[in-house]
Amino acid sequence: MILNLTDLPAKMNNHTITAKDVAKLAGVSQSSVSRVYFEGAKVSEKTRLKVIAAAEELGYKPNEFARSLITNRTKIIGLVMKGVQNPFYPQVLKQFTTFFKAHGYSVLFVHTNNEEIQKEDIENLINYKVAGVIITDATMSLKVAESFQESKIPLVFFNRKLYTDNFFSVCCNNLNAGRKIAEFLISKGAKDMIYIAGNTDTSTNQDRQKGFFEVLASHNIPYQKFSSDYTYEGGYNTALQIMEDNVMPNAFFVGNDIMALGVIDALRKNSVTIPTTTRVVGFDNIDMAGWPAYELTTWEQPIVEMVEQTVNYLLAEIHDYTGEAKALELDGRLIDRQTT
Amino acid sequence: MILNLTDLPAKMNNHTITAKDVAKLAGVSQSSVSRVYFEGAKVSEKTRLKVIAAAEELGYKPNEFARSLITNRTKIIGLVMKGVQNPFYPQVLKQFTTFFKAHGYSVLFVHTNNEEIQKEDIENLINYKVAGVIITDATMSLKVAESFQESKIPLVFFNRKLYTDNFFSVCCNNLNAGRKIAEFLISKGAKDMIYIAGNTDTSTNQDRQKGFFEVLASHNIPYQKFSSDYTYEGGYNTALQIMEDNVMPNAFFVGNDIMALGVIDALRKNSVTIPTTTRVVGFDNIDMAGWPAYELTTWEQPIVEMVEQTVNYLLAEIHDYTGEAKALELDGRLIDRQTT
Repeated sequence: MILNLTDLPAKMNNHTITAKDVAKLAGVSQSSVSRVYFEGAKVSEKTRLKVIAAAEELGYKPNEFARSLITNRTKIIGLVMKGVQNPFYPQVLKQFTTFFKAHGYSVLFVHTNNEEIQKEDIENLINYKVAGVIITDATMSLKVAESFQESKIPLVFFNRKLYTDNFFSVCCNNLNAGRKIAEFLISKGAKDMIYIAGNTDTSTNQDRQKGFFEVLASHNIPYQKFSSDYTYEGGYNTALQIMEDNVMPNAFFVGNDIMALGVIDALRKNSVTIPTTTRVVGFDNIDMAGWPAYELTTWEQPIVEMVEQTVNYLLAEIHDYTGEAKALELDGRLIDRQTT
Repeated sequence: MILNLTDLPAKMNNHTITAKDVAKLAGVSQSSVSRVYFEGAKVSEKTRLKVIAAAEELGYKPNEFARSLITNRTKIIGLVMKGVQNPFYPQVLKQFTTFFKAHGYSVLFVHTNNEEIQKEDIENLINYKVAGVIITDATMSLKVAESFQESKIPLVFFNRKLYTDNFFSVCCNNLNAGRKIAEFLISKGAKDMIYIAGNTDTSTNQDRQKGFFEVLASHNIPYQKFSSDYTYEGGYNTALQIMEDNVMPNAFFVGNDIMALGVIDALRKNSVTIPTTTRVVGFDNIDMAGWPAYELTTWEQPIVEMVEQTVNYLLAEIHDYTGEAKALELDGRLIDRQTT
């Protein structure tokens, strides 16, 4: 192929190279250029070679949107998240972005202000023809989840288990972790305990509580439950309330770390010594749990493994959609620090 | 128009409605359907009416990718971020997502592991034909930034000022804030001070330091500088080093809050009392700065206003590209708590 430099204005001016530039240089139609880049499209070998030579010369790359019109999918994963104030979630976001990038996928970040993911967010994800969707700490109606299934868009509930068998979810084994934490506190000599609950309608809260109370009941250990909301302020205010009511247990199991830090600060404000007067265990193992100001004993969620399993499932489903439903639960481990 | 129910399999089965379905029902070609939805495309009034009636009947919405092929832009904003471990940035991400959503734009989250944004990230953003790009705590070569300008993709440096007049940046007025913090600590009676620097090549660090030292010098207050890295661990280790060297100043100005929390924890570990023996001031006003465990005096960055100005600029540039370059600096204010 003979190249004529006057045919190269786009490259020389550093403009974006389009299919039009390639078609012009190759001496073929624009639609021939498109056909070369999409799997299964019919195009003669002669045309293909002309187009590829021109494209290489110009540095042309077909764009994702053009490709998506044919495949009907982009290489974008929608990630829905609510509580960025809880450091657990930015950590999850970072891990997902890193893993997906290694596979050529990008993350469209959807922040929900409300507990339930909103209609316009769903429409947006479908509109952008995302390859997959991950729902973290937001809730979603069954009807909406089914609409993704009908569109064959793979969906994972991350850190939330569903009480239906129709979806894929990836969690820490919260039930078992709750049991282990109860056994650990009993082994430390705690004679009565308080569970400070996170948002009561979440599976994480329900399972942690269930496992914890199950073991306490079997050991005849008295316990109480106080409801809170998985935030620092929630933990702080709930602990102040408990002290006003004048009930100080031997140990607290607090539904997540960020609440547990609030509990510790409230106890200290009232000069309650930890772990001599009472003990505190959190859940998640966020960075701050290891800070010297807190040294919080907690349950480490296996974030990297949870993210890896989610990514593997989504990539497999994107490649060959089966609609497989499974509740995957991974172990994690107790991190024994200074608050017990 | 007479509707025949047998023409409606897509809607009845809840499949995604495509231009093909609309074309079939309207009795026109698929390309006629496309032309109806893209500004400036030629189509007869008769065809237009047929298509719109069929589209309304089926609930068809043209997708963003098809639209982007014509406009050559999506309604996606690329947001590049490195330090999600610093709670300042998840807060920024949340604000941007909320503001952009109100204007129908989505956020593609790009996480850079390295200080400098990587080549594949840039290619990805251009490939997805983003409407605009926001660079937060990552750095970018001048050449890369210029490539966005050449593609007429508006670009904002957020929380980073550039030492060139060619780009739009939005920052807190760090120079002035550094001055005010120096004046404040002098007014509290501090006789000698230490500045703990964040990453030395960032404008935030350079400006805060410059303003701080300028005022101290003019008051003949002795000062020293120790280099760190804008992380909790960095602040903690730097403070331990300072105590080993046996230099305890009257006051510390620490480059950001997350480092300052590390400094406080290290001082307490060595039983240095705050604010009686020494004082600590941070920068950002992250949530944790207000927690009872720290009660850190700090400079509040006006995040909401900074985000709002960034969004306004980008939307204006997306609508009508001017390539306007400006270094916007917003004030913020001192939050006086218990560490001074």
